[in-house]
Amino acid sequence: MIFRYFTVLFCVYAFAKASPAQSQTTSKDSLKVRNLYNAALTEGNCYEWLRYLSNNIGSRLSGSSGAESAVAWTKEQLDSVGLDKVWLQPVKVPRWVRGTPEYAYIEGSAGQRTQVPITALGGSVATPLAGLKAQVVEVNDLAALETLGEERIRGKIVFYNRPMDSELINTFAAYGGCVDQRYAGAMEAAKYGALGVIVRSVTHTLDDNPHTGSMSYGDLPNNKRIPAAAISTNGANMLSTILRLNPETEFYYKMSCKNYDDVWSHNVIGEITGSEKPNEYFVVGGHLDSWDLGDGSHDDGAGVVQSMEVLRLLKATGYKPKHSIRVVLFMNEENGLRGGNKYAEVAKEKGERHVFALESDSGGFTPRGFSFDCDDTNFAMVQSWESLFKPYLIHYFEKGGSGADIGPLKDTGVVLAGLRPDSQRYFDYHHASTDTFDAVNKRELELGAATMASLVYLFDTYGVQPPTSNFKN
Amino acid sequence: MIFRYFTVLFCVYAFAKASPAQSQTTSKDSLKVRNLYNAALTEGNCYEWLRYLSNNIGSRLSGSSGAESAVAWTKEQLDSVGLDKVWLQPVKVPRWVRGTPEYAYIEGSAGQRTQVPITALGGSVATPLAGLKAQVVEVNDLAALETLGEERIRGKIVFYNRPMDSELINTFAAYGGCVDQRYAGAMEAAKYGALGVIVRSVTHTLDDNPHTGSMSYGDLPNNKRIPAAAISTNGANMLSTILRLNPETEFYYKMSCKNYDDVWSHNVIGEITGSEKPNEYFVVGGHLDSWDLGDGSHDDGAGVVQSMEVLRLLKATGYKPKHSIRVVLFMNEENGLRGGNKYAEVAKEKGERHVFALESDSGGFTPRGFSFDCDDTNFAMVQSWESLFKPYLIHYFEKGGSGADIGPLKDTGVVLAGLRPDSQRYFDYHHASTDTFDAVNKRELELGAATMASLVYLFDTYGVQPPTSNFKN
Repeated sequence: MIFRYFTVLFCVYAFAKASPAQSQTTSKDSLKVRNLYNAALTEGNCYEWLRYLSNNIGSRLSGSSGAESAVAWTKEQLDSVGLDKVWLQPVKVPRWVRGTPEYAYIEGSAGQRTQVPITALGGSVATPLAGLKAQVVEVNDLAALETLGEERIRGKIVFYNRPMDSELINTFAAYGGCVDQRYAGAMEAAKYGALGVIVRSVTHTLDDNPHTGSMSYGDLPNNKRIPAAAISTNGANMLSTILRLNPETEFYYKMSCKNYDDVWSHNVIGEITGSEKPNEYFVVGGHLDSWDLGDGSHDDGAGVVQSMEVLRLLKATGYKPKHSIRVVLFMNEENGLRGGNKYAEVAKEKGERHVFALESDSGGFTPRGFSFDCDDTNFAMVQSWESLFKPYLIHYFEKGGSGADIGPLKDTGVVLAGLRPDSQRYFDYHHASTDTFDAVNKRELELGAATMASLVYLFDTYGVQPPTSNFKN
Repeated sequence: MIFRYFTVLFCVYAFAKASPAQSQTTSKDSLKVRNLYNAALTEGNCYEWLRYLSNNIGSRLSGSSGAESAVAWTKEQLDSVGLDKVWLQPVKVPRWVRGTPEYAYIEGSAGQRTQVPITALGGSVATPLAGLKAQVVEVNDLAALETLGEERIRGKIVFYNRPMDSELINTFAAYGGCVDQRYAGAMEAAKYGALGVIVRSVTHTLDDNPHTGSMSYGDLPNNKRIPAAAISTNGANMLSTILRLNPETEFYYKMSCKNYDDVWSHNVIGEITGSEKPNEYFVVGGHLDSWDLGDGSHDDGAGVVQSMEVLRLLKATGYKPKHSIRVVLFMNEENGLRGGNKYAEVAKEKGERHVFALESDSGGFTPRGFSFDCDDTNFAMVQSWESLFKPYLIHYFEKGGSGADIGPLKDTGVVLAGLRPDSQRYFDYHHASTDTFDAVNKRELELGAATMASLVYLFDTYGVQPPTSNFKN
């Protein structure tokens, strides 16, 4: 693309700096929204926060020293913003440690070995000390186990190889469509006598990066638990091809990961106390923990720094909220959700009336809008604000889920919302060593923070409406 | 983000695979559009085409061997698609060659030198063989030259340092707002006796990559032409800081770039001949030439392979267009627009009635929609199709510019359109060594091609409407 000096190629007025608000809102609203975007884009702090969190602290798996550094550092940063209160909320979290790097190979019938990249799934038990070697049975879903039956599974490694559905435009839907293999694959295969499981990484890309993630053994007794690993998509395709040529092919892997006793950690909380309704609470949050392979820049470093930025932007632009607005950096979303549960539990104990919660946990990409878990009255109010967001190309306002950490706050009369950024690149990085600071674009991150701040501003100004009868909790 | 086995966090039905079409269109349309997206996302060829074009051919500046390889290879690829006709259209193009790598430093009054990254602007003359060293006068716009006057400019290097406006959501608007420095900076400064110009790279990022681009001397005589270079944004900030500390600071640069005589090259054209209106033409295109620093993956390798993919998708899905649909890969958009002008000239000579043209030249990022240069009747028809695009998160349909190469086709009754992808990352790569294949995401590229193919399908099906009286050509 070039610029032609004498011809305006592209209508520079297509996106005006201010938009006329529609009848329900005032020009004050559109100016305030513009104000928030300008502050985020020209004097924003979230990108520099993310630089430190990602590059100087790094990965933050619950119970790790990285997680504890992140707790201390984010509290210190929130202290510097000048909020009314900043505190740590104790929460006990699981502690799972990967141990030495995993090692795996495919072994052909003539003994030739091909090394493939794997990573232990979070929560998995280790292999035996010398590793585990067995023949492989490839399946595309959990249901296939029943068809195969114990006879063809016992003593083998089950290889789950269902890829993401490329046709789904929303990549989170494609993720939801195949992640059961990762979460429940070991639990189910163990019931048929499998020795271990290998799961295709949940990503669209064909590359050599295995993607970890949570898994569960349900109520399987300890002696029935089998090791579970993710294999890179290139590795999965290779294994599948080799198995077609020789079904006797063996797979070897060695992992030393281990579950330890729970340890204490914290949610990090900051608050601007409301000027008119201090006892009605808004929450804006992301999760402070991350997986251990990259530095968790998109998942969920982005959500953490955007949430911090929302409160900083409100203060920096001189806005005094009517309600009490809290930023909550939740611990342990990835492998336990203990932070989200603890926050809701304490809020209930204290009788704190929460009316609004917004989570950013879908990556730091260009924001497209929000999904809302709320009643029709509040949703209709959101729709009346759409024109305020149009100049910022924010167009997606749909009913749907919100975020894992704020889910436990769900109750009649609470509006839950999730930021929805562009999802096409998310699973390139998700839970892999590629989820690093360089994968985040400064402007995209800042636009997300401004979009969140604008929604918080509007709900604070117009208030969360009383629940309507059609609301199904 | 994790997946919770027992809770569907995110509404997987938010984006259905098929959307009910509104009254103006039929369910056949929504199925066809779904069909085009599915084919692009599951059996697409554009990403593999781009891999070859970027990695095996590389940069393609007009008149270079890379450009000629790209002409030959894209023709060969179009031949393999099974179109009705494929041909080369001769066009004479400028030939400007960068020569040996540029070299520059800032020299303090004590003689200390700090090297900074620069790149010659396309079309610039060289510095003297030994380089050019002079004091620097920093300005923020062309108008400042008049204020300073010849006395304070003569014998110096003019340093244009106006940055992009971060507040503009559409980054192309921010580009348009400061690129006059690059295009006309040398021409204007020369009139005041400047010896050379240095221009801040037109990018939002702060980094060490200078961004080249076209510039013009207008009708300045040869002996008045002065060398023009872009400096990286970090380099520009450093130079500005040093100048504030010491206005006597000198800048040295050496460039050996040269303009040669025009050479012959080609537009590459392929056609599916229309079944009902073979003498009414649609054009889908991008530009085959690129700057020489990266490999031109976003600018405009993406547009080239997406345009090729549009015709391949129409054929692969068994669609037989009523109108004749041409893919045109234009030569020399970057520094001359000779290909676009030649194509329009030949079309006029032959009396070929063009009714629709679509260009992709804004990067291979997630598509957001289109801008249209057309009358109200056709624009209203486009708006009636919006619901067909909603499942694919295509939401931007605005009047505006289209594309440089198809601009010369503008005439009463022609609909011109430009694909509008997300623009946040575009200027990170634009005209710099960072515009390489790894900066393009497969799904984003494919979604763009499918979005273009869908628009072509709809205009082919419903026809371009006769011009309305309000159309101002």
